[in-house]
Parts: sequence; structure tokens; C-alpha cells
Amino acid sequence: MSLTDAQRAEIAAHASETTPTRRPTVPSLEAMLYAPQNVLDHGFIRVIDYMGDDSAIVQAARVSYGRGTRKVSEDAGLIRYLMRHRHSSPFEMCEIKFHVKLPIFIARQWIRHRMASVNEYSARYSILDSEFYLPAPEHMAAQSEVNRQGRGSVLNGDDAAEVLNLLRQDAMQTYSHYETMLDAENGYGLARELARINLTLNTYTQWYWKVDLHNLMHFLALRLDPHAQYEIRAYAEEMLKVLHAWVPQTAKAFEEYRRGAVTFSASMIKVLRRMLAGEVVEVADSGLSRREWDEMMAVLREQS
Amino acid sequence: MSLTDAQRAEIAAHASETTPTRRPTVPSLEAMLYAPQNVLDHGFIRVIDYMGDDSAIVQAARVSYGRGTRKVSEDAGLIRYLMRHRHSSPFEMCEIKFHVKLPIFIARQWIRHRMASVNEYSARYSILDSEFYLPAPEHMAAQSEVNRQGRGSVLNGDDAAEVLNLLRQDAMQTYSHYETMLDAENGYGLARELARINLTLNTYTQWYWKVDLHNLMHFLALRLDPHAQYEIRAYAEEMLKVLHAWVPQTAKAFEEYRRGAVTFSASMIKVLRRMLAGEVVEVADSGLSRREWDEMMAVLREQS
Amino acid sequence: MSLTDAQRAEIAAHASETTPTRRPTVPSLEAMLYAPQNVLDHGFIRVIDYMGDDSAIVQAARVSYGRGTRKVSEDAGLIRYLMRHRHSSPFEMCEIKFHVKLPIFIARQWIRHRMASVNEYSARYSILDSEFYLPAPEHMAAQSEVNRQGRGSVLNGDDAAEVLNLLRQDAMQTYSHYETMLDAENGYGLARELARINLTLNTYTQWYWKVDLHNLMHFLALRLDPHAQYEIRAYAEEMLKVLHAWVPQTAKAFEEYRRGAVTFSASMIKVLRRMLAGEVVEVADSGLSRREWDEMMAVLREQS
Amino acid sequence: MSLTDAQRAEIAAHASETTPTRRPTVPSLEAMLYAPQNVLDHGFIRVIDYMGDDSAIVQAARVSYGRGTRKVSEDAGLIRYLMRHRHSSPFEMCEIKFHVKLPIFIARQWIRHRMASVNEYSARYSILDSEFYLPAPEHMAAQSEVNRQGRGSVLNGDDAAEVLNLLRQDAMQTYSHYETMLDAENGYGLARELARINLTLNTYTQWYWKVDLHNLMHFLALRLDPHAQYEIRAYAEEMLKVLHAWVPQTAKAFEEYRRGAVTFSASMIKVLRRMLAGEVVEVADSGLSRREWDEMMAVLREQS
Repeated sequence: MSLTDAQRAEIAAHASETTPTRRPTVPSLEAMLYAPQNVLDHGFIRVIDYMGDDSAIVQAARVSYGRGTRKVSEDAGLIRYLMRHRHSSPFEMCEIKFHVKLPIFIARQWIRHRMASVNEYSARYSILDSEFYLPAPEHMAAQSEVNRQGRGSVLNGDDAAEVLNLLRQDAMQTYSHYETMLDAENGYGLARELARINLTLNTYTQWYWKVDLHNLMHFLALRLDPHAQYEIRAYAEEMLKVLHAWVPQTAKAFEEYRRGAVTFSASMIKVLRRMLAGEVVEVADSGLSRREWDEMMAVLREQS
Repeated sequence: MSLTDAQRAEIAAHASETTPTRRPTVPSLEAMLYAPQNVLDHGFIRVIDYMGDDSAIVQAARVSYGRGTRKVSEDAGLIRYLMRHRHSSPFEMCEIKFHVKLPIFIARQWIRHRMASVNEYSARYSILDSEFYLPAPEHMAAQSEVNRQGRGSVLNGDDAAEVLNLLRQDAMQTYSHYETMLDAENGYGLARELARINLTLNTYTQWYWKVDLHNLMHFLALRLDPHAQYEIRAYAEEMLKVLHAWVPQTAKAFEEYRRGAVTFSASMIKVLRRMLAGEVVEVADSGLSRREWDEMMAVLREQS
Repeated sequence: MSLTDAQRAEIAAHASETTPTRRPTVPSLEAMLYAPQNVLDHGFIRVIDYMGDDSAIVQAARVSYGRGTRKVSEDAGLIRYLMRHRHSSPFEMCEIKFHVKLPIFIARQWIRHRMASVNEYSARYSILDSEFYLPAPEHMAAQSEVNRQGRGSVLNGDDAAEVLNLLRQDAMQTYSHYETMLDAENGYGLARELARINLTLNTYTQWYWKVDLHNLMHFLALRLDPHAQYEIRAYAEEMLKVLHAWVPQTAKAFEEYRRGAVTFSASMIKVLRRMLAGEVVEVADSGLSRREWDEMMAVLREQS
Repeated sequence: MSLTDAQRAEIAAHASETTPTRRPTVPSLEAMLYAPQNVLDHGFIRVIDYMGDDSAIVQAARVSYGRGTRKVSEDAGLIRYLMRHRHSSPFEMCEIKFHVKLPIFIARQWIRHRMASVNEYSARYSILDSEFYLPAPEHMAAQSEVNRQGRGSVLNGDDAAEVLNLLRQDAMQTYSHYETMLDAENGYGLARELARINLTLNTYTQWYWKVDLHNLMHFLALRLDPHAQYEIRAYAEEMLKVLHAWVPQTAKAFEEYRRGAVTFSASMIKVLRRMLAGEVVEVADSGLSRREWDEMMAVLREQS
């Protein structure tokens, strides 16, 4: 991550002020506030603001007049209940705002989550920095042979280096031409909104992104999944840490009932009943496709 | 408004705690936090939590690293610009949460605003209090003769008193039967989710309602309008005071560019140009319907 | 259900016209178009319009230039895949519009589904009919003793009859007073928007409701659940039939992967693995709460 | 626009089938169905499906049992009324689905409209074609000197040609390297989800985009605006023609009350009243900023 000194100073000035508030406050999240957490080679997430905590969920679910808290154990129980039964509205009562720096191809996946608010740095209005994402060698992987939208084995060192070279050279050349197009004195003075179309999809952009807790967990459930593209998973992993710092009871319930949970189809439930009754079930008479069977067996055999 | 002592104590306990935060804080809104503001005969709104302030809008619009503030005057200018050009996304970056007590027929209008989060007190799970809205005599009005969905002149004193009696008696009787249906010992022990269907639409309910600043202003623009039903306008008026306490620059821009603004149709603009050129335009050759003409003239003649 | 002759004539006139279209058409749904399907004592749903079919989902998922269909079996396989992996966006590509007549207390639950469009009959503008929901004796149930928001055993015949009397009398009396309040000649001429507040929550209203297929299935998954209130389940059951007529492949996948599916928490998966390894697991060392344990065992033992 | 023969055949096959339907049908839109309308150098929009027509709006607004139509003139009057008073919900009752081919930098603006459904061609799953947007010389403009996010005068011919060369060469080179990275035999066999990050932002993508009529008009109001980037305006212009073919009464009302309408702020209204009273108002005592004053005067003086 490459922040200028001016940016570091802005962040430091922002972070140093403290004022008293009567709102719910979460010390472990306050400690993280404003500080960029590195993601990928030049990206980051940083928490800019938040509203609510675990007990705000309880308070809303009970439509209560006070803080909602009876005992910590009762609150935790209610949160687990709400998560388990997918009562999502109380989780909408907490809100968080991030500043995120991310490559454009990841921004294009991220923005598909519509239940959030976004302000993106405008390349019609301003000039983008010369920063682009280059995968680390261990993430430079071949096309998967079993999954049409995934990665297979890692490229060998020479191939990885050569691909990296192509990516770096093309990004640098297109950026250099972008500058030439923009330059009114020694170049062409082209409109910013046009010049930017020459940039590659690994160019970094940044935005403010605000989301409620329910939709944040929906984002995390999808983007922490092993089938999500590695680069967006890297952001989700960092945001999961924020979740644990912010709403620890909710985060635990999320791990138990969402992230670690598995949904079995109607046919899988029938297979399960037969297996538990001692029957040896084969894929051929299971009513499942080969792929579903394999997925189910993988879940049942996995070591925890 | 009728809060029990226990409720008052809960609120007081909640309001008395102060903790330091590094988040933006708005002292004038902090002073209002948790305290119920009376609306109608038994209703209230109270602010439970908030996120962001005027400068958070500026910060998001600029995607800046620090607080966003340069000078107060520059921030105000940017906020006016954003409001004028309907750049709504930076206003989505602030959030507020209310606890509202309101009659069911108003809740039914309110919930039509979909871009908000709601947790309502559940009459399947709990028993509603015996509280129902009775209009004050000065709001007891006849059907409008010009507007099919509005009110005309106020009823005379005797009529108002008689209507009030009908409303009160029916609400009391249906509530009393609700209690009988529910009572497992001396009544019928009917399920709560069924018994409640006997209650009248002026029965009070309550909910937590969370909304971003953009959608709050959209709610206010519609519900402060003279054509909105008086009872929901009463809530909107109280929330407008909150808006001014919370984000004073935004509230001023809202009054200027939204609430006090008027939209002229393409044909109205043509009429305006002719009038400014000194022509005496008549409705017959204006290209406007009688109703549009009247509305336009009302705007142009109104004393400010 | 009580339609006037004029309403029946309107529906018949609407249904009799046929025009050629190049759009995808579903004969089994065309056959149901416009005809009211009775729900509860006076309610109905009727399909007013629709857009898309099973192959429109496939076409969108493939972003293809033609109809999307290769073979029916391939299409069905892709639909199952999309449903299983919760790829919801292709299901958003189909749309359906209903006209629904329903009691107000059900309308209040229904409207919580925000991702839909609604036009409700306005009681500010028009006068509501004298129609109110009265539960059939077999649905007149006592409060559940185990579930704070559910029903237990059915009331005995005498009690049911007495409750029914209370409901009927109160609804008739409040409606009669509503008429008196409205009547400008022999009553008070009160504004419609005020008079309606005297009506009970079982009064029928009606609306046009438009939703995409993804959100329709979300509605159905929640409202077909045994924990949903019986009266809204009755509507969902009728709409499930529409789903099967409209998009049969999707409806099958919905039954398999959503309605008939069960989600096991991380701890439940661990218990399952131990059970399949032959271990006798007891609730005490399962890591589950008593309630979770009971729910899990109920799923595993249920006869299919 | 460059369609393959196979694609043309798919479209033709799709367009040739006709079936009878009892749904509302719009002949002028049926005539356009499926046929691509060219936009920019390789892009297009084509209408894939639609639901509803002008009278469906009227029917929903009246919650009527039949087609809603009384007389065409009454329907038109109601539609104008709804548009003028921003009663948006009846317009949500119509829906349309487009297949759009567009450059990625435009897709990034377009996707900001969240109230729509999207299925995009996946570059994780498939390989993108070698098609990229190159502006025509007359759209190759310099950065505006008055508007930080707009275009000024057109580049001279030589400069335009040189910029075009840079854009073309960079797009071709990055695409060629994309192919090399993907090629498992003679290149590196890199995963598709990684190789695509080397492409430039003017590369074409495509998607299915479905939206209701209210949100379509919101999109058009913003994207037909002279301040919108030319390239997205080109799409909006083509979609405006579709609007007129589909819902002619609504389209007329849209031109009158939205596109051709102007909103004056509270201060502008005061100025207007003084001007109409014969006063000569100067910017200095108008209460308006210089920029607001200029905008207002431009509206009032413009020849229609």
C-alpha cells in the first residue's frame, strides 16, 4: 500500500480527535478506526464510521425502550436465534462504512451487491494514480480443468515471471499513454472521461462503501466462499476480522449458522436418513447427480 | 404520550452513559438522543442512534483520506451543489435510527418507503397496549369537495364531539373484546395473532426505523407536503427538527432546493418566457390545463 | 369471494381478447390469467400479467442471442445448478403481477417484502367495502404454549362460536359507524382518510403486487413455512400453484433446493459426522442446545 | 456492430415465432423485439421482453378488475397527473428487458442504477471478444475548461488521429497478450479470471438488463442529461425511442414533466416573482450565486 505523507497526516489528524458520545461505542472497533488494513499489493480497507453493536440488535428485536441488554448470555442466545431462523431485520439496524482501495476488476464484482451505498473516486473528474494490481507468484494460477470459472495449479516460476512481465509492461504503457493523452501542454489535453478508457482493468480505484450488518454478512458469506475469486476473498477476509471486532456475538453466530453451515437438498435429506438407518447408499440409487453426491460426501467426511 | 415509569427509567439509564469515541459527533443531536418528542395524542419519535454529519457527506463526495473539511464555507457550497444537482449518493453516507410510536393507519403509509429498515413490535408475540389515536377537534375535518383524498372544513363542535364519541367507544369496545379473547382464564385464550384482528386501525404500534439521510429527505419531502395526511405530517414536522439539529448545512440546502423548490413543466417554462417578455398570457392559449394553470399562478403570486 | 356482476364482466372482457406476440408465452399460465383464485372467506389472488418462462432464465444466465434453449434436459440442469448455488440474478429476469384481495392484518405482513411493487386501493380516496375476515372454526385456535408467536389447539365449538360472534359484531358495528361518519347527508361527512381509522384490522383491502421470480420464491419460502401465520400461508399455497404452472422446472428446483432443503449449522455437521461414524451422540455432548437438538432429530427421523 | 452469422440466425429464429396471448400487447414494440439497434461502434441495445403498456399503469393506479381503460383521453389525463405529482408506483407496474452490448467503462456507470436486474457475460467463465470502443473523431474532445468532468472543444484532426492510434494500439496489444496468457498450448494457460485483468476499459462486454418503467425513466432522465458522458447518452437516446414505441402516453408525459421540466429553488422563485412584478433584478441582490443566476437566466431566455 502506498499512501502519501499528506494522506497519512490526514488520517492521523482524523484519528486523534476524541469526543464524548451517548451512543453505543465498541472499543475494539474504535481501536481500528481509520487505520488502513493492507489487502493485495496496493489495496486497503479502513473503517470510517459505524453505528450500533451486538446489543443494538437485541434492542431492535425487542423494540425496547432502553439498551436492550438483560444479561450477556440472554443477548447471545437471542442473536443466535435470530441468525438461525434468518430473522434478518434486526441485523439491518447496525451500519458500517469503509474506505476501500481495490482494482477495477474487483470493483466490478463488488458493486453487484446492490444493497449498499457507494461513492467512487471519479476518473471523469480526477486523474487516477499509476497503481495497478500484479498477482504474487503464488496466486498466478492456470485455468482450472474441472471448474470453468476457477483456478487450477500455480504456474511454474518462469511462466509466472513472464506473465507478470506482460501485465506490468502493458499496465505501464497504457498508463503512460493515458498521461500523454491528458497532458495539455506536451500531449493532447484529452478529456479525462475519455483518456481513462485506455487503462487496464487491474488499475486501482477507491470508494466509500456503506452497508448494514445484514448485507455485510451476505457479502461475506458469498465472498469468503472458496469459489469466489481469490482477490475479492482477500478483502472479505480482512472485513471478517472487522466483523469479529465490531459485533463478536453476531460474528460467532455467523460462523456457526452461515459460514460453517451446509444446506442439504430434499433428496440429500432422504439419503441421510437411509445412511443413519444403517443402509449402504450408492450414488446410483441415491437420487443425486454425481456432482451433488460428491459434494455431500465431501461435507460428511471432512475432518473438522 | 404515556410512558410507564419502567420505560422512563430504561430511557434515563440509557441516556446517562457517555463514552469517548473517535467518530464524528454532533453535540446538538447528542442532546436530543433517546428523549421522546411527543407527536399526536400518544405517539412519539426519539432518536436512538446516528452515523455521520455534514462533513461526512463532503468526505464521501471527495473520497478523501481525512475529515473532508477544508473550510465550513467550502463544505456548505459543496453540499448545496450536491443537493441542487441531485447527486444523492453522498447523502446516503449518513444514517439515523428512530424509535417511533404511531397509529397503525399511519404505519401503513410510512412502510411504503421501502429504502429503510424496520423492526415492529409484534402483535403475534406480544399484547398491544390500550392506546388509540383520537383526533383533536381542530383536526376533525369534513371530506374535501375539491380534492378526493383530502380534508375540507373543520366539523362543527357538536358533530366533532359525536364523531369522537363513536371513535372512542368503538376503540374501547374492540380492545375490551381483544382482552376477553386473549384471557386464558376468564375468556377464550385465543392466539394473539388472531385476537389482534379485532383492533381498530387507530390503535398505536411502535417500531425501530433506520434510514439513510438521502431517503430521510425523500420521506420528508413527500410527507411534509400539504397533500400528505395531517397525522403523518405531524411526524415529519418533528423529524425535520431532528434534521436541522443533525446536519444543519444539509437541512438548509434541503429547504432551498427541495422543500421550497418548484418544478415547472416544459409548457410552463414556455408560458414563463412569454410572461417575462411582457405578453399577457391567458389560460386558453397557455397550453396548460386549468388545474396546471391555477397551480402555476398560485406559485407565482404567493407572498413569500 | 364476492365479486359484483360489473367486476365479473370487466374480468371476462379482459380475458377474452387474444393477440399474437413474439414474446415467450406459457400456455398453462395463460389459462389461469385474470381468473380469481379464492383464498380465505372473501380474498383472492389473480394473475394479471407475467414476463418470461423457464427458458428466459437460461437465456439470461448464458447472455445468449437466441431463446437459450438447447435441450429441455440441459435447461433443467442449469436451472437446478443456479438454484442450488443460489445464483439468484437469472431468476430476477422473470416477472409476475398479481391482483390480491386480503385482510389488512395480512397486508401488513406481506408489505414487509420490500423488493416488490405495490399499488393499494386507497381508503383516503375511496370507500372500503363491508367485507371482513372471519376465521373458519377449524382455524380458531388457542395461543400456543410452546411458541410465543403461534397457535395451539383448536378452540372448542362453543368458544369458537362466541369468539366469532365478537369478531363479527365488532366488525359490523365499526363498519356501520364508518358509514355514519362518511355520510354527508344523514351522518357527519367526515373525511374518508379519518373515518377509515375506525375499521378493524380484519377488513379486506386489495392491491396490485408485482415481483420478480427470485423475490417471489423468497416470499414463498418464508410464507409457506409452518411458522408463518395460517392466513398468509393460505395465499402462499395458492401462489405456489401459479409457480408450478408458470415455470415448472424452476418450481421443481425450488421444492428440492429451497422448500424441502434443510440447513445444518457447523455444530450439527459435526454431530452428523460422529453419528455416521457409528457413535451414539447424546444431546449433552453434542454442542447443541436442547432446542437445536430437537429440531435436528425431527428432521432426521421424519418419514418422507 | 459485429454479430456472427450464428448470432444472427439465433436472433432470427427467436423473432420468427408468434403465439397468441391474453396479455396486453404493444404492436409497435413487438415490431422492434429482438432486433439490435446499433449504438457506438460495436454496441447495441435490443428489447428481449416487456410486460404492460400505458393502460396497465391506469389499471394499477385504479386497482381495477378489468383493463382499466375508460377512454384514451381519460387514461392520458391520469398518466399526466401521476407523472406530474411523482406518483411513481403505478409506473413500476410495467417492466422491460434489454440485451445490451457496451464498453466496460460505460457498464461501470450504468450499474450504479441499483433498482434493476443484471446478468453480465462472465469473463471468469468465458473469453471476451476482441472488440473495443474507439471514439469517432467528432467525439474526440479536449478536457472542458469550465466543467471539471466534461468535454470542451473537439481535437484537431491530427491530434485526434494520433490519440486514436494510441487507443487502438494499446487495445490490440493488451488483447493479444490476453490471448497469449490464456493459450494453454502456445502460451501460459492462465486462468481466465486473471488474464482478463490485462484488458483496457474500452473493451466491450454485454448483459441482460431488466428494469421497471419508473426506474427506466429515472435512468433516462439522468443519462439523457447534457452533463452525462456522451457514450452513455448514446445508449439513452436509443432507449428513449423504445420508450415512445412502448408507452406513448407515458413517454409524452415524461418529456413534458421530467425531461423538459425545470426545478427552481426557493430563492429562484422569489426572483421570478420580482421579475414578473416588473422589477429589474440584478445578480448582486438576487440571493443567488453567479452560477445559479446564469443557469436560471439560460432557462428563461432559451428559444423553444
